[in-house]
Amino acid sequence: MNLSEIVPVKFTGDKMLVLDQTKLPGEQKYLEMTTKEDVFVAIKKMKVRGAPAIGVAAGYGLYISLRDYDGTNLNEFREKAHEVADYLVNARPTAVNLSWALKRMLARLDDFHGSVSGAKKLLFEEADRIRKEDEQSCRKMGEYGLTLLKPGMGILTHCNAGTLATAKYGTSLAPLYLGQEKNYRFRVFADETRPALQGARLTAWELSKAGIDVTLICDDMASIVMKNGWIDAVLVGCDRMAANGDGANKIGTSGVAILAKEYGIPFYMFVPTSTIDYDTPKGDDIEIELRDGREICEMWYKTRMAPVGIKTYNPSFDVTSAEYITAVVTEKGIVYPPYEENLQKLREK
Amino acid sequence: MNLSEIVPVKFTGDKMLVLDQTKLPGEQKYLEMTTKEDVFVAIKKMKVRGAPAIGVAAGYGLYISLRDYDGTNLNEFREKAHEVADYLVNARPTAVNLSWALKRMLARLDDFHGSVSGAKKLLFEEADRIRKEDEQSCRKMGEYGLTLLKPGMGILTHCNAGTLATAKYGTSLAPLYLGQEKNYRFRVFADETRPALQGARLTAWELSKAGIDVTLICDDMASIVMKNGWIDAVLVGCDRMAANGDGANKIGTSGVAILAKEYGIPFYMFVPTSTIDYDTPKGDDIEIELRDGREICEMWYKTRMAPVGIKTYNPSFDVTSAEYITAVVTEKGIVYPPYEENLQKLREK
Repeated sequence: MNLSEIVPVKFTGDKMLVLDQTKLPGEQKYLEMTTKEDVFVAIKKMKVRGAPAIGVAAGYGLYISLRDYDGTNLNEFREKAHEVADYLVNARPTAVNLSWALKRMLARLDDFHGSVSGAKKLLFEEADRIRKEDEQSCRKMGEYGLTLLKPGMGILTHCNAGTLATAKYGTSLAPLYLGQEKNYRFRVFADETRPALQGARLTAWELSKAGIDVTLICDDMASIVMKNGWIDAVLVGCDRMAANGDGANKIGTSGVAILAKEYGIPFYMFVPTSTIDYDTPKGDDIEIELRDGREICEMWYKTRMAPVGIKTYNPSFDVTSAEYITAVVTEKGIVYPPYEENLQKLREK
Repeated sequence: MNLSEIVPVKFTGDKMLVLDQTKLPGEQKYLEMTTKEDVFVAIKKMKVRGAPAIGVAAGYGLYISLRDYDGTNLNEFREKAHEVADYLVNARPTAVNLSWALKRMLARLDDFHGSVSGAKKLLFEEADRIRKEDEQSCRKMGEYGLTLLKPGMGILTHCNAGTLATAKYGTSLAPLYLGQEKNYRFRVFADETRPALQGARLTAWELSKAGIDVTLICDDMASIVMKNGWIDAVLVGCDRMAANGDGANKIGTSGVAILAKEYGIPFYMFVPTSTIDYDTPKGDDIEIELRDGREICEMWYKTRMAPVGIKTYNPSFDVTSAEYITAVVTEKGIVYPPYEENLQKLREK
């Protein structure tokens, strides 16, 4: 299979289409986005998810929310753009790429002088550029990541930081696709990643479609596969990295990192520089999204799997302390500890 | 609610009844066991589960499989009993209580001299004794366990080692019930425990029925609740403990133990002495049951949640190394490291 067949957000003709990832792997269905509310809901309900893909959706989403504006006043158009961005940015609080993409779009618009139709064109082009840059960035991360791996290695993944989470290739799955082209024969173990099951539904799906050897496990089996000696490296994505190298990623990532440390297995976090939030000094300052407890008790199931009225706690992310991260892989290169210092150097690159 | 209302295996009149735990919490349904095949399937399919409850079911199960024997030859009856035991012992390989209970029943029978009807009575009485002793043993474990805890503590549980897993009280949940009687106001976090969801379906159910404050989380949230400072102790059960203190328990237990160590939280394993297998020197020697991968991809769900044809790995247990176990709580007292030495001393008590 060609990876280009799996595209989470695309523009076809004048239609913005989002692959509904909540329906995978059973059904491959694209939803057309025509309003800002469509985009908000698609992000909020995780129909599109993964920090970079959310950034791409936000870019195109800002454009489609404004393209029907029928005035000619650029200032008013700009104000409207800021309003839409203020609305979209609240769809999910943790992934920094959402605000990063919207800020970038608005900055281009604020610098622009000309007609409203010119401004619309500019927004579309900027959104398209975000997508293309993400694809290039993922490819670079894949190349850097591959230098850390050897043929035949056993790899553990958590959640989905694959082509479905980005414009193409993925972040932490990118080296697996590049390795596959070189016949590296990785043996991948994918955590199913409760409650939203991104590992089972998305990672297992896209890796197996690409012909990569993948075995699905429950999250509570990560320890035994490490103990069995089957895992040589852990590869995960990132939704927001603080300036000190603490990285927020899908719930459970911090636990996997601690297990990896205990078993002496390298833990690599894949972080496009757009995901590094230099304004956030440390992980404790990152807002963690809490989601509806019905995701734990009811979602996907035939019947409710927990007593009626039970309390739940359903954080969508956790923060992996920098101390557990062996290396941070970015599109500009691999960063090693001390992160506070070396992430700053990266910024100046 | 009175705990006596939740009984996983009971004899009512001449009927052996097993609470079908695969139907909880939605439905409370008892199944009558009339043949050895019924008992085998009930254990195999985890309708009755939890090492001590499996022991109780094996005891009564041996009796009901033999009570319709209509011969008068005691030797033949004995042979038949050995055959049934050889059959039942294969229902599940990891929990030692299954073979322990069957061996104990056979040993009583082998020592017996008298009529076949006397032998049948003896088997019933021995099975009943196993149940009563388990209840007493759990109560003692609860009392010892409670000395390790303080009012208001946050407790993490994995799987279900509660009243549903035993004759009454449970092993690792016993101190919570005894604490509840003393108004200890524990705040319990229950791992849902994939794939069979014993935490969501059973632990959350029985604790909340008893009025204990319980919050359900996914397995991959254990790290964040510890990091949040909400957990003061981890309490888990055990399906088989080797002579060196390595303990096999529900899959995921070893991961929770490693997290607890990393966060500096005590990890207590509750182990009735019937669960200690002195013939097994270390954890690596314990056979780990592998179960059908459909439990990961399909069980409980409306639709399949993973790609068709995906490989899975579905071990039902893992082994927690003795080094991660702060203390082993038994009905004879609390055992601290070094376990090899101190478990031997316990044996001689």
